[in-house]
Amino acid sequence: MSHRDYGTALVVGAGAGISASLARLFARQGVRVALAARDAAKLRPLTDETGARAFAADAGDPQQVARLFAEVTAEQGEPDVVVYNASGRLRGALTELDPNEVERSFRTSVFGGFLVGQEATRRFLARPVEQRGTILFTGASASIKGYPHSAPFAMGKFALRGLAQSMARELAPQNIHVAHVVIDGVVRGPGRPEPVDRPDSLLDPDAIAETYWQILQQPRSAWSWEIELRPWVETF
Amino acid sequence: MSHRDYGTALVVGAGAGISASLARLFARQGVRVALAARDAAKLRPLTDETGARAFAADAGDPQQVARLFAEVTAEQGEPDVVVYNASGRLRGALTELDPNEVERSFRTSVFGGFLVGQEATRRFLARPVEQRGTILFTGASASIKGYPHSAPFAMGKFALRGLAQSMARELAPQNIHVAHVVIDGVVRGPGRPEPVDRPDSLLDPDAIAETYWQILQQPRSAWSWEIELRPWVETF
Amino acid sequence: MSHRDYGTALVVGAGAGISASLARLFARQGVRVALAARDAAKLRPLTDETGARAFAADAGDPQQVARLFAEVTAEQGEPDVVVYNASGRLRGALTELDPNEVERSFRTSVFGGFLVGQEATRRFLARPVEQRGTILFTGASASIKGYPHSAPFAMGKFALRGLAQSMARELAPQNIHVAHVVIDGVVRGPGRPEPVDRPDSLLDPDAIAETYWQILQQPRSAWSWEIELRPWVETF
Amino acid sequence: MSHRDYGTALVVGAGAGISASLARLFARQGVRVALAARDAAKLRPLTDETGARAFAADAGDPQQVARLFAEVTAEQGEPDVVVYNASGRLRGALTELDPNEVERSFRTSVFGGFLVGQEATRRFLARPVEQRGTILFTGASASIKGYPHSAPFAMGKFALRGLAQSMARELAPQNIHVAHVVIDGVVRGPGRPEPVDRPDSLLDPDAIAETYWQILQQPRSAWSWEIELRPWVETF
Repeated sequence: MSHRDYGTALVVGAGAGISASLARLFARQGVRVALAARDAAKLRPLTDETGARAFAADAGDPQQVARLFAEVTAEQGEPDVVVYNASGRLRGALTELDPNEVERSFRTSVFGGFLVGQEATRRFLARPVEQRGTILFTGASASIKGYPHSAPFAMGKFALRGLAQSMARELAPQNIHVAHVVIDGVVRGPGRPEPVDRPDSLLDPDAIAETYWQILQQPRSAWSWEIELRPWVETF
Repeated sequence: MSHRDYGTALVVGAGAGISASLARLFARQGVRVALAARDAAKLRPLTDETGARAFAADAGDPQQVARLFAEVTAEQGEPDVVVYNASGRLRGALTELDPNEVERSFRTSVFGGFLVGQEATRRFLARPVEQRGTILFTGASASIKGYPHSAPFAMGKFALRGLAQSMARELAPQNIHVAHVVIDGVVRGPGRPEPVDRPDSLLDPDAIAETYWQILQQPRSAWSWEIELRPWVETF
Repeated sequence: MSHRDYGTALVVGAGAGISASLARLFARQGVRVALAARDAAKLRPLTDETGARAFAADAGDPQQVARLFAEVTAEQGEPDVVVYNASGRLRGALTELDPNEVERSFRTSVFGGFLVGQEATRRFLARPVEQRGTILFTGASASIKGYPHSAPFAMGKFALRGLAQSMARELAPQNIHVAHVVIDGVVRGPGRPEPVDRPDSLLDPDAIAETYWQILQQPRSAWSWEIELRPWVETF
Repeated sequence: MSHRDYGTALVVGAGAGISASLARLFARQGVRVALAARDAAKLRPLTDETGARAFAADAGDPQQVARLFAEVTAEQGEPDVVVYNASGRLRGALTELDPNEVERSFRTSVFGGFLVGQEATRRFLARPVEQRGTILFTGASASIKGYPHSAPFAMGKFALRGLAQSMARELAPQNIHVAHVVIDGVVRGPGRPEPVDRPDSLLDPDAIAETYWQILQQPRSAWSWEIELRPWVETF
């Protein structure tokens, strides 16, 4: 399969931000879109708008992930692109963190990414070499810098990056493109309007989605494993 | 407390390699040593040799970690140095990994590190600023490079590094020194003798322990957060 | 100026590989192209093919760089995009390197990049904020990893990356986009055909140029500073 | 030669800070010390105090570097340890930097390091494998992060790190230890007293020297290539 000819995209950890922009962009490009979230009902406005299908799944549960892929495949065809976009952000002084919440955060940030990446890989490897797809992971500033009062997010995002890098090294020669996008800054969204006097100071999710799309267009002679994105006025 | 005057050291994830060398070095330096492992019985030869005390604890269980610190404190005094040395290495093609084992591996590699680091920090913060201690994490090549067929180890070790970095940023200004040592190569040990024709091609655990000790001697005007160690003939 | 509306692009260090692909792509997109090389005559086939203009300049000489920008501006309009693509590759055992050649290599790899970046910046800053342009630097594997027997290339490419990062931090808030592309692998070209049994194992310069173009399209709310590209079968 | 048995140390780029502490520490350890600076006269107080010998040399000049090594060898024995400690710090907005000063800065920061490292390596390689020595490079925050208004320092320090990494990979298997120390913070010194209300907020050069000494003690089964040092209250 040419990397310019994607039939179905699955976005796991779908909500109002990047995944909504991805859904719109994929729909515009003629790619069928499956959106997965623990609470599929909240995706209603987005599915109404884009024609995407919503699926309820807890990405941290192996059975649910297997079922998710089976359902998407049955209804929309097997995904050619899989985006793991879920994040278990949890902040607090180290000594005040609740271990159960830390585990939950890790489950969302990285264990779900592992399960989704594993299932996508199984399905891709079952295809002829030329028809394998792409797996994208959404990272954050915390993927490469461990901030104070943010240990669980650092653990989860560092781990997801390790997973993505290991997968990229293992799977690239199998013609499966794995990439990791470091979102370094705050993404503009319903609850997070941009300061009027600071134009473009928050990341536009449509611009992020555009970069995901560009990665999807890369021919295999020149693949990126990692790309970082930040607003022009973001300190780094 | 001066960083040259440690009363008690606790090494979690103790076995035959680095932790044995640490036990010997601490003992030699007059520091009381507590060794923790799931199976404390296997530490018998080492405790016999060094006078260290062994404690049974599963570092991935919050209650057991709390109890471990309480027991060590009761028997040997509250630890001034805590080393997290446990590792859940798990290899295999991505598609063949068992999710339960991946979770277990993560629990050992990083969740235990979080729990141990958190408990140590709670106790250090309860002391006067000048009497706080040091927390050391043992990393690996996989902490900074995700290798193929090694996704779980990359996830765990990247995560541990993120934890250590977040803790270092959060706790350094509280006079708690957190450091991460990247062991890049194979450590010499009972089951892993050195090839005769390649002298010093495996890491000598005594040499590693020496570096841990040097980190413990650093005055707070010049702390390392990360140090990597590898044999002279190791490719990197 | 919208970042989708570039009038003139200047590529310094132009030859047969990436810069030729850039010239073709820019021409196709309706952007006027200026190509600069020490030996402008060798660019003849490329200028014939693409309509680009060739300029002779030694990028390591401040006067020649100033004159280059003046000439390009007079003939084609002031550049909106500047690509620094020159590289002073020099290999050899450390002890056998000739200091004069090391200096020359450095002059080409990074001092020229500094001069070109400085002149571009001066001109961009003289424009209204909204009309400033983009500066791209071509990096290599050696930008992030110092290989044995390649000290001068590591020095030059590390230095260029440091320059690009310092410029990105300094100039992004001035609405000047600075990006660094790490080319990790061998670029296909006239003298370097691809092994028949290893399809897409060398970087296709057209694919590289495509990524440069995508960077040029990024809106300022989501800029990349660094992107790496490598063939699917490249070990990293 | 055992790495615990150094006869002569040469410190290039000697002044009042780190190199003075190194001179004192080496003298205390019974190592003969040669200090090199462009202006040897300024080293007088230090040589009076420590018994070190001062040599005038411009490290950016190949002939002077060769002569320096010859003179030191004649007077004190061939160096077993060589520290490159010179730095061409130059700050300013990118557009206001004078290219000649940028070149000079680069010459001091990295070209001198290349020449000194090359000459040291030549001499080490001429010895039996077991008697080769150690080369240490002094880095800075700017070695790994390109700050705004500091392009030349980023260029020089990134380049020096690339050199040190390339040398480490090339020379470690030759039993030559090359290490790079990232000094992340301000070093306390004659002109830079510590704020009274911020104890240990500046790097103590004696503590830095201590870490250099520890690197020199590492057996080759466990060498560090890079170590970073910063004060406990330094933001990173």
